Amino acid sequence: MIITVTLNPAIDVTYRLPGLTVGEVHRVAEVTSRLGGKGVNVARVLHQLGEPIHAVGLADHDFGEALARELPATFLPELEEVRRTLVVVADSTTSLWEPGRQAAVGADLRLLDLLAEQIADAAAIIVSGSLAPGVPIDLPARIAQLAAAAGVPVLLDLDDAALAAAVGTGAVLTPNEDEAARLLGRPLGDPAVAVAELAARHGGPVVLTRGHRGLIANVGGMAWEVRPPAGVSGNPTGAGDASAAGLARGLANGTPWPEILADAAALGAAAVVMPVAGEIDPDAYKTFLAEVRVRRIDHEED
Amino acid sequence: MIITVTLNPAIDVTYRLPGLTVGEVHRVAEVTSRLGGKGVNVARVLHQLGEPIHAVGLADHDFGEALARELPATFLPELEEVRRTLVVVADSTTSLWEPGRQAAVGADLRLLDLLAEQIADAAAIIVSGSLAPGVPIDLPARIAQLAAAAGVPVLLDLDDAALAAAVGTGAVLTPNEDEAARLLGRPLGDPAVAVAELAARHGGPVVLTRGHRGLIANVGGMAWEVRPPAGVSGNPTGAGDASAAGLARGLANGTPWPEILADAAALGAAAVVMPVAGEIDPDAYKTFLAEVRVRRIDHEED
Repeated sequence: MIITVTLNPAIDVTYRLPGLTVGEVHRVAEVTSRLGGKGVNVARVLHQLGEPIHAVGLADHDFGEALARELPATFLPELEEVRRTLVVVADSTTSLWEPGRQAAVGADLRLLDLLAEQIADAAAIIVSGSLAPGVPIDLPARIAQLAAAAGVPVLLDLDDAALAAAVGTGAVLTPNEDEAARLLGRPLGDPAVAVAELAARHGGPVVLTRGHRGLIANVGGMAWEVRPPAGVSGNPTGAGDASAAGLARGLANGTPWPEILADAAALGAAAVVMPVAGEIDPDAYKTFLAEVRVRRIDHEED
Repeated sequence: MIITVTLNPAIDVTYRLPGLTVGEVHRVAEVTSRLGGKGVNVARVLHQLGEPIHAVGLADHDFGEALARELPATFLPELEEVRRTLVVVADSTTSLWEPGRQAAVGADLRLLDLLAEQIADAAAIIVSGSLAPGVPIDLPARIAQLAAAAGVPVLLDLDDAALAAAVGTGAVLTPNEDEAARLLGRPLGDPAVAVAELAARHGGPVVLTRGHRGLIANVGGMAWEVRPPAGVSGNPTGAGDASAAGLARGLANGTPWPEILADAAALGAAAVVMPVAGEIDPDAYKTFLAEVRVRRIDHEED
């Protein structure tokens, strides 16, 4: 079983209407909504791939109950309310992201207790996305320590301060280029050099996620560059979560790194062709998996 | 006790952010929300005035439960979900109104049953606002018949087809100028003449609501023009609901019409000075009540 952890879930709402004009009153033609957040999207992709999962996180009572009707899920009712991300689709797409709501005092400890109960059944843990206000910034790092103590591989797909707090835990880190540059405190420069520097500083695997340019990974001094299939277009939202799902599945199964990385890149591309986050196109995935190119780029192979 | 009936409630959500640009992604700085809908606003004003009320309507389970913590309220869980009205306040104000969600089959009958149980304790009933999809358009008219049979005065603040279906019930009708013109099927022309014509056709009181220009009422051939205090500015949202609350209170107490109308105009103005719908400024209300002018305009007085 793979445990996904979501510390700031969202209800992803889409409004469709003919046009949006600032300063005007509009009647929305169509409203759709979906339970989301990065960890929930990861759980959806893994579930679609047939992997046994348990989606864990912090939410409000209604969100937890509704998600448990869709996926194996336990969300503790620790947030005042779950934020909404509103996407208004008219001639163009306008997004309004609500701030996350405050977590109850002690939510971190109760979540760690829940994970401690489940860790014996876990093949991997993945923590994805931002933290609701009130969640201690080192909670993902403490989850990594709990997993490490139990011998369970862990992937942390974080940003900003939570990512910085996770450096040194040995967990798999998956910064994007902006996040990596902020961690290094300088412009990224040669990405392979940057990833090597981050991995050395971290003492664990670092996978740099580069959108349509693919992945660069550094694991124990070995490094790979992964190029996804060219010319894939669609909705990039959720592609990172699908890639992360692939990494988590590979970690859970002990798959060799080059194969893990190819799988992650193919899943990311197979998410781009789907209109909503948290889903992949299974046929496109098979096709893309054959097209992904993984190249070893560390000096050992030069 | 005054019963307020809301057949298409709303959660009124306000986003505040520095600027809104179509096609961009925005982080919302502040989110506030409030349980609303026209009948709920009427109930809030009456409650603030110290009137015994019972707010009744159709909603979902969460809305009903949350409203009952704020007001004496029974909302049947007959809607899939309660719609949201989103107001985005940036440099200017942009509104996005979700469509109402479908009501369960038989919701109208269950609401009538609820009202039939409560009618013995009612001094007046007021039905305000639109109808959720699936609610038969003549439900307000049937509520008026139920009230009439019990000798309870009823006010219907409706629009479009539900208003048209209520003509002939004898209930107090409160169209605005657009609604009155649509009912007559012609441009409004002299509003006093139009109101007299509508009242004659309806066989009951008609109060034309004219925003900052006040009210014109025709009751059994007697007519009054009511001028609110001049120069009141602020937020007109909810002013009509505050006026309607005044009318309902007057009907419940058997107050003479000129006094009812003065009260309604003063309450409307006292709502304009408040930033949110469903509230009045009590001091402004007292001041405005002294400033309102009610003039008899039917021929009896010429």
